[in-house]
Amino acid sequence: MKKTIYIFQSGELKRKDHSLYFENSEGRRKHIPVEDVNDIYIFGEVDVSKRFLDFMSQKQICLHYFNYYGYYSGTFYPREHLNAGHVILKQAEHYINDDHRLRLARLFIEGSIAQMIQVLKYYKSRAKSGQEKIEQTLEIMKNEQSKLPHAESIEELMSQEGHSRERYYALFDVIIQNKEFPFEKRSKRPPLNRLNALISFGNSICYTTVLSEIYKTYLDPRIGYLHATNFRRFSLNLDVAEIFKPIMVDRLIFYLINKKMLTKKHFDGHTDGILLSEEGRRIFVGELDKRMSQTVKHRHLGKSVSYRRLIRLELYKVQKHLLGEKKYEPYRTLW
Amino acid sequence: MKKTIYIFQSGELKRKDHSLYFENSEGRRKHIPVEDVNDIYIFGEVDVSKRFLDFMSQKQICLHYFNYYGYYSGTFYPREHLNAGHVILKQAEHYINDDHRLRLARLFIEGSIAQMIQVLKYYKSRAKSGQEKIEQTLEIMKNEQSKLPHAESIEELMSQEGHSRERYYALFDVIIQNKEFPFEKRSKRPPLNRLNALISFGNSICYTTVLSEIYKTYLDPRIGYLHATNFRRFSLNLDVAEIFKPIMVDRLIFYLINKKMLTKKHFDGHTDGILLSEEGRRIFVGELDKRMSQTVKHRHLGKSVSYRRLIRLELYKVQKHLLGEKKYEPYRTLW
Repeated sequence: MKKTIYIFQSGELKRKDHSLYFENSEGRRKHIPVEDVNDIYIFGEVDVSKRFLDFMSQKQICLHYFNYYGYYSGTFYPREHLNAGHVILKQAEHYINDDHRLRLARLFIEGSIAQMIQVLKYYKSRAKSGQEKIEQTLEIMKNEQSKLPHAESIEELMSQEGHSRERYYALFDVIIQNKEFPFEKRSKRPPLNRLNALISFGNSICYTTVLSEIYKTYLDPRIGYLHATNFRRFSLNLDVAEIFKPIMVDRLIFYLINKKMLTKKHFDGHTDGILLSEEGRRIFVGELDKRMSQTVKHRHLGKSVSYRRLIRLELYKVQKHLLGEKKYEPYRTLW
Repeated sequence: MKKTIYIFQSGELKRKDHSLYFENSEGRRKHIPVEDVNDIYIFGEVDVSKRFLDFMSQKQICLHYFNYYGYYSGTFYPREHLNAGHVILKQAEHYINDDHRLRLARLFIEGSIAQMIQVLKYYKSRAKSGQEKIEQTLEIMKNEQSKLPHAESIEELMSQEGHSRERYYALFDVIIQNKEFPFEKRSKRPPLNRLNALISFGNSICYTTVLSEIYKTYLDPRIGYLHATNFRRFSLNLDVAEIFKPIMVDRLIFYLINKKMLTKKHFDGHTDGILLSEEGRRIFVGELDKRMSQTVKHRHLGKSVSYRRLIRLELYKVQKHLLGEKKYEPYRTLW
């Protein structure tokens, strides 16, 4: 199987006769066996000559560019290339066919509720008080979970998820136990208190993280299954983010508040609503970044992978599902 | 109206703050007003940095690369900014549904043959001799045209189009009447004579021109209808180019040869095949550019539009067809 090459260093990609090498800004060369390369993802400040691009064209290798902030910027598509038209057709097929769409949407919701349950279980075993409340909510959520297979529409699924999520958020006060961060109720655009400001900020980072990883697959972010009621934004990333928000965002919030790394001084009041200050955002993404590169033991692979990698693996699973290779099973955290 | 930039020299494309310049290999700089640029065609040995490509992405400018021999090599396609999940779903739907796909493919072929017929009619009225031959071919092509509604597969359509095109090309000798440019037969990769070299070069420019315009719509170039037997290249641009090749490329070729703007000295023989020289390419794209910004009276709009604009309007028509707003009718030139 051909490989994807990721380049994070700065330097120049060069051709030498029939081979390919990368020369970094200190002049060190790394040979890249061109016949093994499927595509190249460029994150560093990398220069290319036309001669090099012609070579990529001959070898039908796509170059994907990401800007300084890690956002996808564009692709050099050789005249002939594997352009993933087949994946996009399958994605559309699964959207157009109501049964297929419902099946995928249900899997995302199942994954989402299962992850929320894992988060609650984790805190139940550690909480100084409120275990009973957590236990009650867990019962209710497991009950909602058992209804999922019977949902007959996306709306029904969404409402079941909504019930679970409401119960789940209601426990944030039990888990956090900090008067500076009451949950009250979920408020967005704008968030009306600090905890909601954190949830909104964290979720938006989670969406863009998944989006970045989608750009590294053949999937098209525009076609989602659960979140496709309007077409004003990418939606597949919202779907897949459901699986990761509880462990990636919510647990980080609990951690940052409990460790007092974020306090009320990290928030600014605005005419309407409350937002994380610049310093607060810095702390949040700094800590998130640490977690994203943290490795967790992967159940099936039998080895440790980073959270970021976990998201990519999840997307590959969705892709396999769409291509009919293997039914998608959402990731479940073990702890 | 935004312009196409053609670069034949060797050097480097660079960004400086919010502007763009080309520095040739002797160090001379040429400022390029970025806000006026539609797309850039690179023929020379031009280097680009990632920083420059990020800038192209921000400004939504496509870069088309041609190799040393003038063959199309690939395109830097900035990240899609027009994010239209609903259009791509419709595009996929029209591909997946055999009837829908056949209908669109048929329309492209109808448009293509109708345009070839218009070109022949134009030259019939001006030819010094051979009117009879042209008339015979027109009869045959009209006959092929009448069979199109009965075609039951893409392959059948393709073969009907193939017959018409063969007859059409056979008349190039009658139209051109220049011993330096015999048609002989259609040869590609490599073209085996001068006329074929011109057709190949012109067609590849036409494909990339349509690709640049697709980028400015909600359409996805990966899903075509006529040219979608595999996903190894962009195909929607190939479909739509069928409508424009006869008027944009073939008529330009006749003009350039008849006006003796291109003669045999503008071609280089290579180990296998014959190609336009750099000077020849320069003349070709220079004249094409004039035509692309030339305005023609638009039948329905009742006003004059440029050829480039005409291509965009054609794409909007395809988009409307896909969205079920209005059945697509291919553009027909009046003269």
